[in-house]
Amino acid sequence: MGLIVQKFGGSSVADAQRVMNVAKIVTDTYKQGNDVVVVVSAQGDTTDDLIEKAAEINPHAAKREMDQLMAAGEQISISLLAMAIESLGFPVISLLGWQAGFNTNSIYGAARIKNIRQNRLQAELARHNIVVVAGFQGINRYDDLTTLGRGGSDTSAVAIAAALRADRCQIFTDVEGVYTADPRKVKDAKKLKEITYDEMLELATLGAQVLNNRSVEMAKKYGVELEVLSSLNPIPGTIVKEYTKMEKMLIRGVTQDKDVALISILGLKDTPGVAFRIFEKLSTKNINVDIILQSFGRDGTKDIIFTCTKDNGALAVELLENMFDDCKIVSNTNVAKVSIVGAGMESHPGTASKMFEALYDSNINIQMISTSEIKISVIIDADEADRAVSAVHKAFIPND
Amino acid sequence: MGLIVQKFGGSSVADAQRVMNVAKIVTDTYKQGNDVVVVVSAQGDTTDDLIEKAAEINPHAAKREMDQLMAAGEQISISLLAMAIESLGFPVISLLGWQAGFNTNSIYGAARIKNIRQNRLQAELARHNIVVVAGFQGINRYDDLTTLGRGGSDTSAVAIAAALRADRCQIFTDVEGVYTADPRKVKDAKKLKEITYDEMLELATLGAQVLNNRSVEMAKKYGVELEVLSSLNPIPGTIVKEYTKMEKMLIRGVTQDKDVALISILGLKDTPGVAFRIFEKLSTKNINVDIILQSFGRDGTKDIIFTCTKDNGALAVELLENMFDDCKIVSNTNVAKVSIVGAGMESHPGTASKMFEALYDSNINIQMISTSEIKISVIIDADEADRAVSAVHKAFIPND
Repeated sequence: MGLIVQKFGGSSVADAQRVMNVAKIVTDTYKQGNDVVVVVSAQGDTTDDLIEKAAEINPHAAKREMDQLMAAGEQISISLLAMAIESLGFPVISLLGWQAGFNTNSIYGAARIKNIRQNRLQAELARHNIVVVAGFQGINRYDDLTTLGRGGSDTSAVAIAAALRADRCQIFTDVEGVYTADPRKVKDAKKLKEITYDEMLELATLGAQVLNNRSVEMAKKYGVELEVLSSLNPIPGTIVKEYTKMEKMLIRGVTQDKDVALISILGLKDTPGVAFRIFEKLSTKNINVDIILQSFGRDGTKDIIFTCTKDNGALAVELLENMFDDCKIVSNTNVAKVSIVGAGMESHPGTASKMFEALYDSNINIQMISTSEIKISVIIDADEADRAVSAVHKAFIPND
Repeated sequence: MGLIVQKFGGSSVADAQRVMNVAKIVTDTYKQGNDVVVVVSAQGDTTDDLIEKAAEINPHAAKREMDQLMAAGEQISISLLAMAIESLGFPVISLLGWQAGFNTNSIYGAARIKNIRQNRLQAELARHNIVVVAGFQGINRYDDLTTLGRGGSDTSAVAIAAALRADRCQIFTDVEGVYTADPRKVKDAKKLKEITYDEMLELATLGAQVLNNRSVEMAKKYGVELEVLSSLNPIPGTIVKEYTKMEKMLIRGVTQDKDVALISILGLKDTPGVAFRIFEKLSTKNINVDIILQSFGRDGTKDIIFTCTKDNGALAVELLENMFDDCKIVSNTNVAKVSIVGAGMESHPGTASKMFEALYDSNINIQMISTSEIKISVIIDADEADRAVSAVHKAFIPND
């Protein structure tokens, strides 16, 4: 008994049958005595279809008009879902982003939620309606439609859960929860019962794209308890919250990320401020640098090595070649980042050495290392990534 | 130099190429120094596609949700048209029905416009924007989306023209104007330069579906000068206004309508109130009766004969059979109504006889006759309708 916010992505409502499946999940929750607010994305490929239509007419269209166009996607999915819920005999109403009170700033295509006017939402809940809300969209101070950008529907769901102080925000996806490793690749991968916001954020950054980071950050900020679960098999999933019981696990997950370019600047003159100049330059072009390593050569020069995403790699090399004549710049995109994440490792000094031992035993060479309080990452050869994840997973995750 | 409202239907914006064609017409008008407001329908089959999606999920969906769904159609077409106009280098903004200030009542699916809040429209025109407005849709007092029903976009265009006191409201269609007869059937059919509101209303009722009647009525009420013209060949079309020069034409058009059922109630007892009872009964089932004829038989009985649309015919027979045991009810759906329309005929007493003569000369038998101030209709055999229209057209329209 409580207030539950449920979010379903585009693939969950892709066709009539799936819309009916979602209606079933929603009404089952309502039947258990809960108030239910459902946040939905646009159906399946609708968003891509609309983008294509626009590109055919004007590939550089004003973002305001793109948002006006895109917002039609969720308008279709919410009304269809409301009709499906109605057909099962339950009271329901669909609300567009602006009808549900989503006030945003005016950055079209990537708007931020400023606040949620709750009067309409509260009124519909008071009438015992199941409320179906269009995710991803809002309205700015000029009464123009805006969209929240990538992962926007997750953010919409968490924002509503925060505003209404919901008891839980359930994010339905095509996986059954958060796993200790990619279950398609690591057969012993386990579904986690619980995970902290910080661990979830690290896992998302490291390539386990289950939840959008912005929504996890918002959930953390407002203390919204999240649950990641499957719309095809709605058994209990993974709860994301502030503190968790440790489940005797030192780490929560092993991930790999192959979208990595390793850039080496070799033989730099060792003058003050050279590192600052390099990374300042990269930041002007919005190149996010991940791991940085600096080492000194014998002849009074130094080497600076860093990683960024593959699509930024070429641009980074180009920028740097114009800065220095007297050094060698090498780019390697055949690398992967393998990481372990877990709030428990802070108080366990042997965690890093245990990871390195597992890799050594598998004869995998480590090129770079980076550590934070709840994460250890290594850069290795891309071809060895799968083998590395399996080895590290086996070393850390108890196999029962 | 003035303010022009232009309306384009769904087929005019069916694909990228047609959207660009509309953008060209709009910007040509703007380049001539006019302020331009464009009203657009949903693209081609979008509306039908959305109806189908809904029917698959819930064939009896709440009308509020149907309107929420349908309104997405124009949202797509206005943003695409705005992008097309932008690509030609002109300032433009798209507005949804509610953004353009369309306040309606709450009859979902067939809402009536109550008023248009003009502040946003006026502000955008003051910024010299071309304003693209979603036709067919508005918002009610609960902030819920509504649609105006059949022909709604024409009504939207006329309502905006009335509110803004536009100099002209151009309705772009797939024909080049209003013709004296269907040009596909009558080779001498002529495009009219001008026609009165009343004549246009009669022509629409009689099956020449160029303009929706509701929009013509509204145009008449607010004195909005309409022009019907082609989006594929935008040469001057037909102006619809209060008074016209007569152009030496007695009549403006000859039309035929085959959606007619002729119902005969034969041998009724001649008791008072019998006609009243019949038509009261029919009106309770929303059966609109067109022409009525009553005649007396020799034996103290009477016959009542009337016409209605074909789909109402069967229902009418069923209703009447339960009312009377002692008379014979015959339904004939193989009939057509051929009519002439023209404000000039009022002052020309010979008009009717000229029409009947033309039919007699072609050996066409008249079954019923109905006349009004600006219209004469006859019911004839359906198979002779085309021949009748040609004969009457030839008799009245000067062939230059």
